[in-house]
Amino acid sequence: MFPHYHAVIMAGGSGTRLWPLSRRRHPKHLLALLESSTLFQSTVARLQGMFPTARVWVVTVEEQVRQIKQQAPAIPAENYLPEPAPRGTASVVGLAAIALKHRDPHAVMAVLPSDHFIRHTRLFHRLLEAAYLVAQEGFLVTLGIKPTYPATGYGYIQRGEPLGVYADMKAYHVRRFKEKPDPVTARKMLAAGGHSWNSGMFVWRVDVILAEIRRQMPDLHAALERIDAAWDTPQRQAVIEEVWPGLQTETVDYGVMEGAEKVAVIPAQGLGWSDVGSWEALFDVLPTDEDGNILRGGQHISIDARDNLVFVQNGRLQKLVAVLGVENVVVVDTEDALLVCSRDQAQRVKEIVKRLQDEGREAYL
Amino acid sequence: MFPHYHAVIMAGGSGTRLWPLSRRRHPKHLLALLESSTLFQSTVARLQGMFPTARVWVVTVEEQVRQIKQQAPAIPAENYLPEPAPRGTASVVGLAAIALKHRDPHAVMAVLPSDHFIRHTRLFHRLLEAAYLVAQEGFLVTLGIKPTYPATGYGYIQRGEPLGVYADMKAYHVRRFKEKPDPVTARKMLAAGGHSWNSGMFVWRVDVILAEIRRQMPDLHAALERIDAAWDTPQRQAVIEEVWPGLQTETVDYGVMEGAEKVAVIPAQGLGWSDVGSWEALFDVLPTDEDGNILRGGQHISIDARDNLVFVQNGRLQKLVAVLGVENVVVVDTEDALLVCSRDQAQRVKEIVKRLQDEGREAYL
Repeated sequence: MFPHYHAVIMAGGSGTRLWPLSRRRHPKHLLALLESSTLFQSTVARLQGMFPTARVWVVTVEEQVRQIKQQAPAIPAENYLPEPAPRGTASVVGLAAIALKHRDPHAVMAVLPSDHFIRHTRLFHRLLEAAYLVAQEGFLVTLGIKPTYPATGYGYIQRGEPLGVYADMKAYHVRRFKEKPDPVTARKMLAAGGHSWNSGMFVWRVDVILAEIRRQMPDLHAALERIDAAWDTPQRQAVIEEVWPGLQTETVDYGVMEGAEKVAVIPAQGLGWSDVGSWEALFDVLPTDEDGNILRGGQHISIDARDNLVFVQNGRLQKLVAVLGVENVVVVDTEDALLVCSRDQAQRVKEIVKRLQDEGREAYL
Repeated sequence: MFPHYHAVIMAGGSGTRLWPLSRRRHPKHLLALLESSTLFQSTVARLQGMFPTARVWVVTVEEQVRQIKQQAPAIPAENYLPEPAPRGTASVVGLAAIALKHRDPHAVMAVLPSDHFIRHTRLFHRLLEAAYLVAQEGFLVTLGIKPTYPATGYGYIQRGEPLGVYADMKAYHVRRFKEKPDPVTARKMLAAGGHSWNSGMFVWRVDVILAEIRRQMPDLHAALERIDAAWDTPQRQAVIEEVWPGLQTETVDYGVMEGAEKVAVIPAQGLGWSDVGSWEALFDVLPTDEDGNILRGGQHISIDARDNLVFVQNGRLQKLVAVLGVENVVVVDTEDALLVCSRDQAQRVKEIVKRLQDEGREAYL
């Protein structure tokens, strides 16, 4: 339909807030957390009918390449772009832009996280259509989520003047792009209205994003130019590995979007989106029983227990979990680790991972 | 010191309120719940210096005999009295009385549960001394515990007139023995004062208890007479196995103590006693960390978690348990089952076991 349209899946994260299920060797996007397929596989499947696999790209870290390829064998091998080490999404976007430029100088790229949930695929496709059309006009386009509480973990996008209607979807100029605000600012923006959360899904022309990187992140751009020059030579991978360690770790949100000149937003209402950003977030996505519990994996007995999440990763045994008289508790049981956490503290699970790192307890990471 | 004094350990229970650690094949008294030794082993060890092992007896059910013997090899084989099946403590006491009578017609027996905790062994010995002296006067003697809340799971003993001082301990006539009262009655007795909880530890002469059984439980007594007649013949075990299935299941508390004529109580203040009757009871016995948590087994990380019990039975792996932001929760993790329970509902763990039984989920029992 759009022969210049490419999808770039970012699949290099870890997801420490989903510990102990999410681990270094089993990162979040490679877990079958919500369905029988992994989040990454669902992300790939969601592109069917919109992008042929020849135009689906995957950026990941080298240690995950093998696992990732096994999960999506239809994607051509040359569309996998391994980073030597994670350096944030700005360099991911830059690397993908170079690769796409060599395939198709007119490429438009949709940058998509690999570890989100989207309920309504048809609406998602329409949004991507609309974003493509807006991106053709030189905008950096972001899909905006309607905020439901004063979250401090998301970027906020303030809408400006209407830009027009594209594929039946309204697009707006962006007045301000504010990444991860403090609580007071978050509350103010929520109260003021006219803001969307940044979904982490972006659409732009390759030439436009490279120009913005050049303007705002000259060091990254210089590194990308070296990679660009070596792209069609046998030295491509050697150059990537040489320049990569010197890159500053930066997100595309801070590094590019906050300071970008020509940004548009398409509000993506009713998409059924979740970043599955914590155990608590599963309550937005998974069905509950009549007592409000989510009981997944293993066998269960629940007596006077309400609004709990119990997630069991079965090892050799079919584990029985009994919950009695507890409310709003998250229980995640794996073979070698067990998390018991109150739902309202679920964001803090990363503190456990931090402590394990600090104490060098590698086996549990 | 008292050559007619025998200790009879009752070791046939199951302890369903300590599921999932306590299981059919690993009953409560055979668990190393509090110390490196099992509750049964601690019960045996507690008798040292008071009873030579030749005068320590163990009544248990046949399926536990092998395990029990391995845990206390010093007790002579002929002192193990296996029941063909559990029929309550009244028949346990009756069987032991017959066995003791044949060893020593003047025997005084101390009946002791195998699954309780007692902190102060020296005081325990003094109480047993005192009880022996009172029992010699023909009383059924019980050790009374000072009640701390209107429990409905214990028997209540109302003290009557003082009986005297024995081995420095005060003994009293018992006015009333009320087994497991309803909540209103329990509150009244607690408010009235002058009551003790029944510890389940009894001391009496063999001839006295047999006379009381004859008077109050004639069917049991008739069965015991048949066993008595066969005791020194090759038919002993065959007769036990023949009469046992016909016995009514009854506790010594209901069957004998409530209606007994000559009962004495010795208040056992400061004994540091616990029946370890539920996970909650472990807070009376085990030390807590500075946040009030008991963290046993495995490895732990605790962040803003208070007053929880985490009990991990390690299998092949050293399991890590992380508790975050929860309070007053009991977590018990075994290889094939996990309990998450609020502390104030810990008594209801037996309901989980009941449901497993009803649903025929034998593997978890």
